[in-house]
Amino acid sequence: MELIQKNKCFDGEQRVYQFESHTLKGQCKFAIYLPPQALLGQQCAALFYLAGLTCTEETFAIKAHAQRLASRLGLILIMPDTSPRGDGVEQGDHWDIGQGAGFYINATQAPWAEHFQMESFIVDELYTITLENFPIRVHAVGIFGHSMGGHGALTLAWKYPEKFKSVSAFAPICAPSQCPWGEKAFSSYLGMDKTEWEKHDAVALIQAKGQLFSEVLIDQGKDDQFYSQLNPELLQQACQKVGQKLSLRFHDGYDHGYFFIQSFVDDHLQFHTLQLTKS
Amino acid sequence: MELIQKNKCFDGEQRVYQFESHTLKGQCKFAIYLPPQALLGQQCAALFYLAGLTCTEETFAIKAHAQRLASRLGLILIMPDTSPRGDGVEQGDHWDIGQGAGFYINATQAPWAEHFQMESFIVDELYTITLENFPIRVHAVGIFGHSMGGHGALTLAWKYPEKFKSVSAFAPICAPSQCPWGEKAFSSYLGMDKTEWEKHDAVALIQAKGQLFSEVLIDQGKDDQFYSQLNPELLQQACQKVGQKLSLRFHDGYDHGYFFIQSFVDDHLQFHTLQLTKS
Repeated sequence: MELIQKNKCFDGEQRVYQFESHTLKGQCKFAIYLPPQALLGQQCAALFYLAGLTCTEETFAIKAHAQRLASRLGLILIMPDTSPRGDGVEQGDHWDIGQGAGFYINATQAPWAEHFQMESFIVDELYTITLENFPIRVHAVGIFGHSMGGHGALTLAWKYPEKFKSVSAFAPICAPSQCPWGEKAFSSYLGMDKTEWEKHDAVALIQAKGQLFSEVLIDQGKDDQFYSQLNPELLQQACQKVGQKLSLRFHDGYDHGYFFIQSFVDDHLQFHTLQLTKS
Repeated sequence: MELIQKNKCFDGEQRVYQFESHTLKGQCKFAIYLPPQALLGQQCAALFYLAGLTCTEETFAIKAHAQRLASRLGLILIMPDTSPRGDGVEQGDHWDIGQGAGFYINATQAPWAEHFQMESFIVDELYTITLENFPIRVHAVGIFGHSMGGHGALTLAWKYPEKFKSVSAFAPICAPSQCPWGEKAFSSYLGMDKTEWEKHDAVALIQAKGQLFSEVLIDQGKDDQFYSQLNPELLQQACQKVGQKLSLRFHDGYDHGYFFIQSFVDDHLQFHTLQLTKS
């Protein structure tokens, strides 16, 4: 694991690491924010943040404005890239597939299956590497994300509740089986058998596995230009059906971007801190 | 003046405008953050932020994380681009000259004099346009900036104290006449007569014009990779000589970038608010 960037930030450090991933079969990068408490070796709660389509490990670190409060709360933030990268990796025909669009699942179909193993990368390889190398409290790891990464956060939380003790999202793709972005990605990565899709669809997973968290926080802008892809109402119905407490907050005038995220990111850090303190 | 981008942010709006500048002889852009108070038509204090080499009107808006506190304080933030732009504008041989490197002065030498009139652009054209179009309290306008833009903020404040009632900077180029970046820019834009350079050099201006502000705030990282270009000690000496109160804060471990700026930006917004409330 090679440290390739380091910047002091709110008395902590914003870092970027690079390593050869055996899961993705290639070089990968992740960013991490270490609050001052972590630099002193104190055990800290940690959050994985999964970014959306076209983003990289840099996006949240630069645009979300989370370090100020993470420094005060003593939260470690782990920010992976959104897909495998590199010359040998399929580029995709558009920004909604291929590099920058890993969808946090393991592809089973050619030509994607070779490198696009983002689910295993996050929950096995990166999870292990970060817990081994940084002072993270083992049972105080949460997950959140935005858009495609909101889908990733919800689905990985419901698949691996032993690894993620709290979950929230900004404008998540709630039902990828039922929207154009998800249909394109899932048919490409997983093939045409829709029973396979349901294993990676937050709405379907919540209906199948039931209530798992004491509360889930979702923020959604009402002027989101991609609203038709997101289906927050289906998530709300699924949560109601299984008795999963959901704080789904709609915000007038906010769109899909990071000016929206930065406006509410503090609430998410506080939400996770509270959940992870309980756990 | 055409609105080309608008994003709700902390109940205010982050906007980008474009207009045909008669000073720069071409299209130009600026970003502005309007806090909720301004959207309601209340008169607000305003800060001009001048960015550094290679930056644009987007840099501070995305990377500095100032909107959260600007929203609470009711501060308007005005963020111009760093130079004229476009096909007809000299590109320069490197990132420290030409487009992205206007140095907030009026060039007198060919081929630069045609478009590179950033001083007049800021203090006349943009100043007038923003005060006419947004609810800005006339005697509550401050200026701050970073690196080349810190030079810009200090020099424009000392040249136009009737327009700017408070001034601060992050890692400013304090004595451009005495560092490689400044020597290259000033010899290109102003020619070889060094008495001309002194009119645009913060250290020389403060020595010539004396104390003008009740206090000046400067933050400087001690691990700044461009430290040798900045000369904060010369600024300190000049301020001491003329009795100008200066809070020059050195910060261990911080570098020249926006992870440094975001760590201290709240202090600058509070400093200006206090100064502008007094004035």
